[in-house]
Formats: sequence, structure tokens, C-alpha cells
Amino acid sequence: MTKIPMEYAIGVDIGGTNTKCGIVNRRGEVLQYEQLSTPEYETAEAFVDALCVRLHLMIEKVGGPEHIKGIGVGAPNGNYYTGTIEYAPNLRWQGVIPLADMVSEKTGLPTALTNDANAAAVGEMQYGAAKGMRDFITITLGTGVGSGIVANGQLIYGHDGFAGELGHTIIRPGGRPHWSTKVAGSLEAYASATGVCLTAKEMLQENPGKESLLRKYNMDDLTSKNVFDCAMQGDEISQEVYKFTGQILGESLANFVMFSSPEAIILFGGLIKAGKLIFDPTIEHMERNLLPIFQNKVKVIKSDLHEADAAILGASALVWEMKPASHASL
Amino acid sequence: MTKIPMEYAIGVDIGGTNTKCGIVNRRGEVLQYEQLSTPEYETAEAFVDALCVRLHLMIEKVGGPEHIKGIGVGAPNGNYYTGTIEYAPNLRWQGVIPLADMVSEKTGLPTALTNDANAAAVGEMQYGAAKGMRDFITITLGTGVGSGIVANGQLIYGHDGFAGELGHTIIRPGGRPHWSTKVAGSLEAYASATGVCLTAKEMLQENPGKESLLRKYNMDDLTSKNVFDCAMQGDEISQEVYKFTGQILGESLANFVMFSSPEAIILFGGLIKAGKLIFDPTIEHMERNLLPIFQNKVKVIKSDLHEADAAILGASALVWEMKPASHASL
Repeated sequence: MTKIPMEYAIGVDIGGTNTKCGIVNRRGEVLQYEQLSTPEYETAEAFVDALCVRLHLMIEKVGGPEHIKGIGVGAPNGNYYTGTIEYAPNLRWQGVIPLADMVSEKTGLPTALTNDANAAAVGEMQYGAAKGMRDFITITLGTGVGSGIVANGQLIYGHDGFAGELGHTIIRPGGRPHWSTKVAGSLEAYASATGVCLTAKEMLQENPGKESLLRKYNMDDLTSKNVFDCAMQGDEISQEVYKFTGQILGESLANFVMFSSPEAIILFGGLIKAGKLIFDPTIEHMERNLLPIFQNKVKVIKSDLHEADAAILGASALVWEMKPASHASL
Repeated sequence: MTKIPMEYAIGVDIGGTNTKCGIVNRRGEVLQYEQLSTPEYETAEAFVDALCVRLHLMIEKVGGPEHIKGIGVGAPNGNYYTGTIEYAPNLRWQGVIPLADMVSEKTGLPTALTNDANAAAVGEMQYGAAKGMRDFITITLGTGVGSGIVANGQLIYGHDGFAGELGHTIIRPGGRPHWSTKVAGSLEAYASATGVCLTAKEMLQENPGKESLLRKYNMDDLTSKNVFDCAMQGDEISQEVYKFTGQILGESLANFVMFSSPEAIILFGGLIKAGKLIFDPTIEHMERNLLPIFQNKVKVIKSDLHEADAAILGASALVWEMKPASHASL
């Protein structure tokens, strides 16, 4: 019998709104793609059933399961060690869900699971800006702030599988309370889309006499996209918002560098669309807070993964990392 | 020919004042001990010559070099990857010193080098409180604040060998400037012996009407030992100093936990002699700043290595970590 090479990996990205899945080759090309609505399914069992119907469809299209090395899943509060989703605040299913085992049983394919931000880091290492790097950090600046840390060529999972929550590190003790965790002064309270809007509103209130394009918006509906648009049109307050956000982010990056001394920090997500507006103050304040031995060494770069595919790619990359002898659900 | 088991490791701890060296067995017992004055030697060459005379003496006492697996060196600004000491501010020898190569050439023994704080972490893993742990952080609260990070059972060196400078992470942006780095608000500016004295002086100045045992000391000569003694006698301001120091340390520990999710944080050094006075506020403020998924999980414990031997033990532990095929100077 000829052995068929297992040339494809499946990536599944479970988000609060949508779950996206795809079949990916070793070069990071998404060959098949499906999606489903996550909150439509009342139980995790019903969700896994619906997911596996889609996976089955895609698998048949590439020639059957013998071509698939395995399935990688990125999920909020995903625990790599146990393959479980634990108390995810933005999913309907409560408690601890043994999702990797459930998917593995239904498909017969080895399944690895981790949180979405860790998956993004593995994706950058496999297909993206971190190819060939052994020490780097990825930071996703989106609705929240996610992160994945690679050191010695390995993802840092910590003793319990939950390492890498850099968005929740404190950078302004006693500062802005986080809307969900209630902790004061975390990075996410400032350097996320929500944080940017809060900063804009604060600056508008603190400078009542100052003209700003932002004032044409209803403050209850203000989005980070509005702040970006106004900044690009030269609006001073909007540009100040980015300077301040970059300062907070840069100070945080300095702390991360002094922790794991990465070769690069790779930024991803909506906030970095602002380009120099956010990169310049970020790099300036990072360098200013570094010990001399770390200065002018660390690259702060944009992810080069295509945003629409990145989550699937990240999840699929877990599969190439699987050890040959790995247990079905790791 | 019978192969003699290489049952001993040599540990060398190079400090700004003294260099200590010893021969250690696998159980962490120091069998032979020597020391020399570091600043007495004008050149690194002269220092290595003097060091190797002592090593030779000790080696002969345990039966010759065939009993020695290798030499581990802990040194300020030591770089594990290159075996060099780079621009150490508290040593006389300037620039980049290829110390591991120099020692290896003179002794014929494989020599590994890292910074003293990383060596301490390896020592805890080999002989101390972190035995059997794969994810932990050690923090030395002495004249300065040193740290070593172990994740996935490996020391985190970073891409350049300099990872783990947690004493220089920023915890009070815009806060107290560090006397040497000039950076504002770093952990070391507060949670070191020097930091404790500065906090005590600030609190005495801010509360001029308040009685305190500390006022009997000349402020220019105040030591952290004085603050400790007064706190133990029930002095209120001195106890406040520990509360404040513990708060800063606890907030920093929360950040470190959200980075690498360690099983334990092991504290070492003069400051922890204060026991509950420092541990209680530290743990309280760490827990208060952690995400729920990290709460009540991380042990904050004292090192159980004997302080006089710890630096030698840590350096010697590098030897047991050496791979069989390792190059003489790694």
C-alpha cells in the first residue's frame, strides 16, 4: 500500500460571532473555506455536530481524510494542555467544554486546541512575519488585546495552559478601570478599539474649547474607525489619541522585551491600520523605557498575514507543530 | 578502561566584590570552597589566572579533572549564548569579555556562563524550591532586583541571551527615577534594598509630625536592615514601607503571571527576611490584579537554598543542564 502524504491541515477559528474553518496547505494557502454562526447553537454538542458537517464536506473535496494531518482549533479561553474551552465569557456554552476531544471523536482526526491569540503566534511562525524566528511576541490590537509569546522556538503556555495574557498586564496602576475585568490600568483598557474610543471621549471632554472633527459624531456611537478617519484628515485631537495610545503600548512593549527579549514584536489588528500614527509613538516610548542592552535591537513590525485568513491559518499551524506520536486531542 | 563517573560540577559566582567558587555534587552539597576578591585584578586575564589556580586546587582535592563534568559561571551581564560578560557596570574589565572560553581553555573543562539571576533559577530547579517544576520565576530582592524565568522546563534567554530583566520593568510610569538607569518607575527603584530606604525617607518627610523609630538614624546612613529592625519593633512608618513595597512587588508579580503563567514565584534575598510583612501585601496585591483564571493558583514562596551557597549552587547547576555534545564554552 502506498502511503499518501498528509499534505493538508484544517484550521478552525471559534469566535463569539462567527466560526470560520478552512483547509490549508503547507504554504499557507486556504484551499477550502466554510463558516457558521457560533451563537446559533444552544449546546456545544449541537455546535460540534454542525461544525463537523462542514469539515466533512471540505475534507471530501480535497480527497478524503487520508490527506489531512489534523485539526487545529483557536478558541477564546482555549487550553492547549487539556483541549478544553474554559469559561469563555463570549460564548453561550458554560463551564469547561472538551472541544478538542469532541471534534476528534467525530472526525477521527487528531485535534489540537489553543486560545486564538496563541494560534495567531503559531501562524506567524509557520507562514508569516516570524518565519524562522525562535523568540518573538505577537500582539493583536482589535476589540481586545490578545497576545502569543514564543521563546526558544516554543509557544509559552505556562503551567496551566493560560500564559500570554499581555492585554491584561497593568501599565497604569490606579488608572482606567477595564469595562469587563474591573482591574485598573491594564493595557487592553487603552490599546484596544474600545480603549481608543474612551481616550477620544476623555480628550474631547478635557478640551471643551478645542475644535475637532470628532465632535460631529454622536459620542454614544463613536467608533475607533471614526477616530482613525479623523486622524487621517489631520484632526489634532484624534492624532493625540494615537500618540497617547502609542505611548501606553510602547511602555508595555518595553516591559515585554525585558521579560523575554524577543527578536521581534509583531502587531496585528485594526489599530495598526493607522500606520506611522501608532507605530512612531509606540517605538519611541518602547525604546525610551528599555535598558541600554535592549535598545535598537527589537523589530516592531506589522503582521504580513492576510487579515481574513489569519485566524484560520493560525489555527491550522497548530497541526504542523503536532508531534507524530501525539494523542488525538494532545 | 573503566569510565569514571563525572559526579561533580564546579560553580563560580562572579560578583562586584567577591568571586566565590565551589565543587558541588548532584545533591547540591558544596564539597570544596574558595573565594577571591574580584576588583583586585586589573585585567580579566589576571583574574582568570587567579581563579584557575583556585579551581585547580579544589579539583585536585576531589581526585582530578576526570571527576568534573564542567564549570558553570554566574556573572553580571553574562550572556549564555556567547559565554561572554558584556559591559558589566560593576566590574573593572570593560567591553566584552569571553570569560567562558578563557576559563575553558585554561582548565580543559566545558564551561557555561549566564547572568547570576538566571543561574539562581537553574539552581532552584536543580536543588531547591522549584525541583520538578517546568514553569516558574525566581526573583532576587537584594541590592538590586534580579530574575530568572523558566518556561516549558527551559530558561528563557531571549534571542540575544539577555531575557529576564524583570527588575527593570516599569510598574509606576512617571514614578521614581532609577538611580542608575534613570528610567522612571521600575520595579527595582522600589523593591530593592536601595528602594526600601528611599521609600522610608520619603514617608518620613511626608509625615513630619509622626513619631518613628527610624528618626533616630542619620538619614544618609539609613539601611534596609534598619527599616527591617524598626518594623519588627512595631514601628508604624517602617511597616508602611513594607506594605507599599509589597504592593508594588505584588502588582509586578501579577504582570509576570499574566505573561508566563508560572506554577510558582520563588523569592530570594534580603528583603524577604521580613516574612509576612512583605509576603502578605505582595500576595494581596498580586491576586487583586490577576484575571480570575489566574487567581489562587500561583504559589509565592521563599527560596529554600542556603543563602551563602546559593550563588555557587546556581552556577554549578548550569553544568547538569549541559548537553553531552556541548561545545566547550557552549
